Amino acid sequence: MQRHFDLELDKLKKQLLEMSKLVEKAISASLEALEKLDAVLAENVVRSDRAIDELENALDERCLDLLALQQPMAGDLRFIAMSMKISTDLERMADLAVDIAQRVMELAGKPLLKPLVDIPKLAELAKRMTAEALLAFVEKDADAAAGIIMMDREADRLRNLIQKELLEDFMAKDSSVISRAMPLLLIARHLERICDHATNIAEDVIYMVRADIVKHHPERLNPE
Amino acid sequence: MQRHFDLELDKLKKQLLEMSKLVEKAISASLEALEKLDAVLAENVVRSDRAIDELENALDERCLDLLALQQPMAGDLRFIAMSMKISTDLERMADLAVDIAQRVMELAGKPLLKPLVDIPKLAELAKRMTAEALLAFVEKDADAAAGIIMMDREADRLRNLIQKELLEDFMAKDSSVISRAMPLLLIARHLERICDHATNIAEDVIYMVRADIVKHHPERLNPE
Repeated sequence: MQRHFDLELDKLKKQLLEMSKLVEKAISASLEALEKLDAVLAENVVRSDRAIDELENALDERCLDLLALQQPMAGDLRFIAMSMKISTDLERMADLAVDIAQRVMELAGKPLLKPLVDIPKLAELAKRMTAEALLAFVEKDADAAAGIIMMDREADRLRNLIQKELLEDFMAKDSSVISRAMPLLLIARHLERICDHATNIAEDVIYMVRADIVKHHPERLNPE
Repeated sequence: MQRHFDLELDKLKKQLLEMSKLVEKAISASLEALEKLDAVLAENVVRSDRAIDELENALDERCLDLLALQQPMAGDLRFIAMSMKISTDLERMADLAVDIAQRVMELAGKPLLKPLVDIPKLAELAKRMTAEALLAFVEKDADAAAGIIMMDREADRLRNLIQKELLEDFMAKDSSVISRAMPLLLIARHLERICDHATNIAEDVIYMVRADIVKHHPERLNPE
């Protein structure tokens, strides 16, 4: 029985990692659409969002079945409940990739305002934080999770840099470029929100690991 | 035993409604701060966010205890699992009220760009959608939930109206007003995201009610 349950938990972890791979792919594809100003690529991102929505539902159903049939205790219960929260985060991250793709559609057909430097850096960071947050969760690695929370400061810094440049060096100097600058500014905000979701997941990991420790090893809380 | 469980479920519902009241209060307070350009009021919104974070944790713990101790079945299990997802939505909605308050801090000290007309309308809609979504959830009312999803179109319309006016009538004509227009534009986006969360909750309600019907009354799915 326990062995069967462990196999079911493994399937759940694989499904979560698969979902995070799809989110990373959606971020990559929306950035490629931006770099090429390619409306068709952007539309593909919008279309592929359906698969992630369906994966969220499938994952939630798996969790509900595990809760109903296996009646797990303590640590496993918390892990399954957190998985349902994280599936929601992943689905929202995919929605933000769709938001980016929609901004690309607004930009398509106009020349790019400036060469993209910091936006690709922020997109790389968003993908890395997503991948590492999910890994930290399935491996219950609180140290890795703490590292991800630190990365969010770099995401904020990059977002502020992009926003400041677009506002002060472009929009404030020449209001005719606003329609080409605004979508870039919003893309930076969408990317930074993806990083926020990864940070939320990392915070959940720390909360989960700490609660496990409290429930199972209360003596570790005051290690004097 | 069942009676005790029903009392516990009632407590959970009350806690969710209490949390949504705090979110509505945060939206009201951030809008009042905007209308008065009052940085102190805005700071209060930022500070009160802590209480909502703590309520999310308390609510999650209550759900985990209910799952562990009562081992609920089918409909109740789904309701408790959804409650944990909705507590996350509510916490994110409160974060968006904090985002609005931070935009107000950027605006404080400068004269308001224009009289506020559509932003207060959008804020009212956000509060109404929040209140009705939570009520639809605790009452498992799919019809009310469907009504909330319809309201989201009005939220999108208001957001687009605000954005278009600020971009075309103000920023494009006089780039010196950008620092007073941008925060208003972002506030409209924050409010619209709050409406999106309410819509997510409404979609969850419909999904939950439908799944209950499928599990308990499969014959109702094909009522020919």
